[in-house]
Amino acid sequence: MKWYLVASLLTILTSSQGILTTLSQTNGKYKYDYATIPFLAEVFKLIVSSVFLWRERKKSPPPKMTTDWKSVRLFPIPSVIYLIHNNVQFATLMYVDTSTYQIMGNLKIVTTGILFRLFLKKKLSNLQWMAIVLLAVGTTTSQVKGCGEASCDSLFAAPIQGYMLGILSACLSALAGVYTEFLMKKNNDSLYWQNLQLYTFGSIFNMARLVVDDFRGGFEKGPWWQRLFNGYSITTWLVVLNLGSTGLLVSWLMKYADNIVKVYSTSMAMLLTMVLSVFLFSFKPTLQLFLGIIVCMMSLHMYFAPPHMLVDIPPAIKSDPESLVNVLVDRKTDS
Amino acid sequence: MKWYLVASLLTILTSSQGILTTLSQTNGKYKYDYATIPFLAEVFKLIVSSVFLWRERKKSPPPKMTTDWKSVRLFPIPSVIYLIHNNVQFATLMYVDTSTYQIMGNLKIVTTGILFRLFLKKKLSNLQWMAIVLLAVGTTTSQVKGCGEASCDSLFAAPIQGYMLGILSACLSALAGVYTEFLMKKNNDSLYWQNLQLYTFGSIFNMARLVVDDFRGGFEKGPWWQRLFNGYSITTWLVVLNLGSTGLLVSWLMKYADNIVKVYSTSMAMLLTMVLSVFLFSFKPTLQLFLGIIVCMMSLHMYFAPPHMLVDIPPAIKSDPESLVNVLVDRKTDS
Repeated sequence: MKWYLVASLLTILTSSQGILTTLSQTNGKYKYDYATIPFLAEVFKLIVSSVFLWRERKKSPPPKMTTDWKSVRLFPIPSVIYLIHNNVQFATLMYVDTSTYQIMGNLKIVTTGILFRLFLKKKLSNLQWMAIVLLAVGTTTSQVKGCGEASCDSLFAAPIQGYMLGILSACLSALAGVYTEFLMKKNNDSLYWQNLQLYTFGSIFNMARLVVDDFRGGFEKGPWWQRLFNGYSITTWLVVLNLGSTGLLVSWLMKYADNIVKVYSTSMAMLLTMVLSVFLFSFKPTLQLFLGIIVCMMSLHMYFAPPHMLVDIPPAIKSDPESLVNVLVDRKTDS
Repeated sequence: MKWYLVASLLTILTSSQGILTTLSQTNGKYKYDYATIPFLAEVFKLIVSSVFLWRERKKSPPPKMTTDWKSVRLFPIPSVIYLIHNNVQFATLMYVDTSTYQIMGNLKIVTTGILFRLFLKKKLSNLQWMAIVLLAVGTTTSQVKGCGEASCDSLFAAPIQGYMLGILSACLSALAGVYTEFLMKKNNDSLYWQNLQLYTFGSIFNMARLVVDDFRGGFEKGPWWQRLFNGYSITTWLVVLNLGSTGLLVSWLMKYADNIVKVYSTSMAMLLTMVLSVFLFSFKPTLQLFLGIIVCMMSLHMYFAPPHMLVDIPPAIKSDPESLVNVLVDRKTDS
């Protein structure tokens, strides 16, 4: 399977995630407990990966599976990072409003590029660095508050702690992604076996979160398993399946492509959601959305297009290799 | 003189033009007739160019000067284009408000690129085309109306005629620039002789405009020469000198650099003016100004940086040429 097909599918599913979530609300409110969704999505991914692994084990050669504790113990770490990230996110939102938080979220694009370079030792050309910065600028541009919108707090008005926490949040989010890529690529274990480990810990951590919620809420709404399917509609189930599927695609990309591809996928999805919202939810299109889309498209082309499509490579290289040889041989004979 | 020094100076002077013009107002109004400014600036440029030409003629070899009518008759054309442009601009403003007009003005960047390619047959790489689009997007982004600003008309609300005229205006503005570049470069006449012709016609056309204004206004304020220096302060004179100097720098760039350099200079000046206005006129900085500046800086680097600084040119070229010869010679011997 080609990485760009998977990336495009991820864009479509991530975009429909936002729309399905909105559609699953009744009068702007959730009739179900939203915290149950990620848990069920983890379970869905676990089941799908188990089935695929089981099928793979019946074939020959059998899938490669590293089962020693030294390897397995690395798989809960992404869940731990996400847990810390959620808490930092919660703390950030005590200092800044949600729209400032959303704007700061675009920093994740740049921090992912930096950690990708530092931890995975991937080299990026100057143009690719510029593309990453432009992607972050483009997504931010599309989110700039329109003239005359209701909430109009200044972006520069929050206390400094808010911005520090926002940066920390962007770093943690990037770290989780980069670490997962490291995990998936560190050996040639079967993708499904790696998924199985990842999602087992994912399910456990999500379940633990539901239990903690129960204790925090003093069991007012009953234990989590009682409200698991409460108020679920078909759309709610679609939200679960959709979230699970995006997770599976992200795993695939982490193993066979990389974090930057994922970042482009999800950024494009954000723009696609905004465009679709214009039609579906009569969201008012803004000039900044249009400008942001142009910047992101340019960034996409800058990052992925082969260099010879972008700049004029000196003629010697573009020309027939045989003639290049002759020129160089001649020069050698002269000297 | 290096073109980038001239371009930087043009940026500074264009930027101070906006600030000086604002400073020359008294309580937000002009105490003098603003239409006299471009006329005096043309006369200033004419005098400066004449002095330089006179000095050049005393040296040997004497400056090259083509004086036949077939050449001279081309020099009023830029003035004619500007005259048409001014009228189109006036017509456009009957359909769209000034902020929409300002936003549409950024189209000029892209139309200049297109006419530059079509008429002057200059080749641009894909990356340079992208840089030009990004420059237009960046300057537009910086001008996006902030949240909560007073006037809040939708950009998409004007009648279609307004947009058509806006596009025509952008094309005329680009045409004037590209045509001037053609004029300045078509032979190696002395720059000062070319300027002398350009500014003689410029002065005549500007004087004609003042006369037309007089007739339109029914000589209520008296003939133009009576109100020429009326209400002038030192700042007004600085506005004249500044406008004249930017014109001289533009002529220089048209002969020794090109239209794209000029477009970058004036776009950067627009951003510089906005940044200076934050300090001078307590203009409120917006997120979109910050984002626009980043996009324009990236565009500048993309357009002017040598390709090898931006992308990784295949290793064969970067490595030692001698070793490249050896590899190629070996390969040739093998075959």
